[in-house]
Amino acid sequence: MAPELAKVLKKGELTRQRIIEMSAPVFNRKGFAGCSLAELLKATGLQKGGIYRHFDSKEALALEAFDYAWEQTKEARRGSITMSATPKTQLMEFIRSFRKPLETLAGGCPLLNTAVEFDDQGNTALRQKAVEAMEEWLFFLQELFQKGVEQKEFPRSLNLRSTSMCIISTLEGAVIMSQLLETQEPLTHACTFLENWLNIL
Amino acid sequence: MAPELAKVLKKGELTRQRIIEMSAPVFNRKGFAGCSLAELLKATGLQKGGIYRHFDSKEALALEAFDYAWEQTKEARRGSITMSATPKTQLMEFIRSFRKPLETLAGGCPLLNTAVEFDDQGNTALRQKAVEAMEEWLFFLQELFQKGVEQKEFPRSLNLRSTSMCIISTLEGAVIMSQLLETQEPLTHACTFLENWLNIL
Repeated sequence: MAPELAKVLKKGELTRQRIIEMSAPVFNRKGFAGCSLAELLKATGLQKGGIYRHFDSKEALALEAFDYAWEQTKEARRGSITMSATPKTQLMEFIRSFRKPLETLAGGCPLLNTAVEFDDQGNTALRQKAVEAMEEWLFFLQELFQKGVEQKEFPRSLNLRSTSMCIISTLEGAVIMSQLLETQEPLTHACTFLENWLNIL
Repeated sequence: MAPELAKVLKKGELTRQRIIEMSAPVFNRKGFAGCSLAELLKATGLQKGGIYRHFDSKEALALEAFDYAWEQTKEARRGSITMSATPKTQLMEFIRSFRKPLETLAGGCPLLNTAVEFDDQGNTALRQKAVEAMEEWLFFLQELFQKGVEQKEFPRSLNLRSTSMCIISTLEGAVIMSQLLETQEPLTHACTFLENWLNIL
């Protein structure tokens, strides 16, 4: 490839990535339906043509923005886990990470926001993204519990899926309540509750 | 008042109430931002002027639709409680009511939907409605726990607020997960989890 062409392509790829990164917090705060093109233009500093050169539609951009937001969220949560620790300690660290609000992305948990926005809107591509993200999160916890059972930190009788579901339910519900009441209190209580529970499993 | 005038007023009041009842499921499913005037007109079968004769704005209608939706939700949940039962039994019955999806209103829990839509949108009137509904729910559970403590069903050391918050977090999170994954499984597990927990408090 000619060096000039490579440079243009690279610049295009960078712009594309920048559009995703700058629009992700807007989608996450306002929702897919609530977020207007005007807001996306303001956030990216581009004209309409500048966005549509890189994405076929608002939905196409939203899908990539969700992927980006979800990656950011996962990295922030999993960053607090000591990979060399035992499965139970890793689970404790993961839960503890919810004591602090996510600072990586405005608007809170992208999975929660997308799940609630699309819970009743048919089988859209964004809804499918949220389903996959939820299944991925469930799998992540189930695997840790499975390892914990193998290392005898948890009993063999433990229902991995049900336990993982209850943890996610409690944390996600507490995230909503904390955001709504504008206090960390619900998250603090939820974390204490789950930590105590893990200790008696 | 002349009978004719009373009749007109009464008819106006009925129309107003019908607009609220018919728009509540639309707001609840689509969200305040996602719900268009066209959808409200379709749901109510009215023209634009027919709605704006009764409500100053879409927001004014949304506020009353939220109140209506929340009353419906409370009635459906509390309807499953035996008022003559002990506080602990009433709490168990309340939790158990989440094993079945709400059938009173399309779009699921109005508190959850409004909370997530407005969690990051400043101090709007609808956000305030959701805050008040959440505080009311917390108070309802706290009072039952308080009575349970008085009747020695729970220990005196029980933190009423933290316990109530954890119950709401777990249930609301499970509602989201169940809607997203289109299965009652998360709600079933959450209810079993909370029922077992109430029994060891």
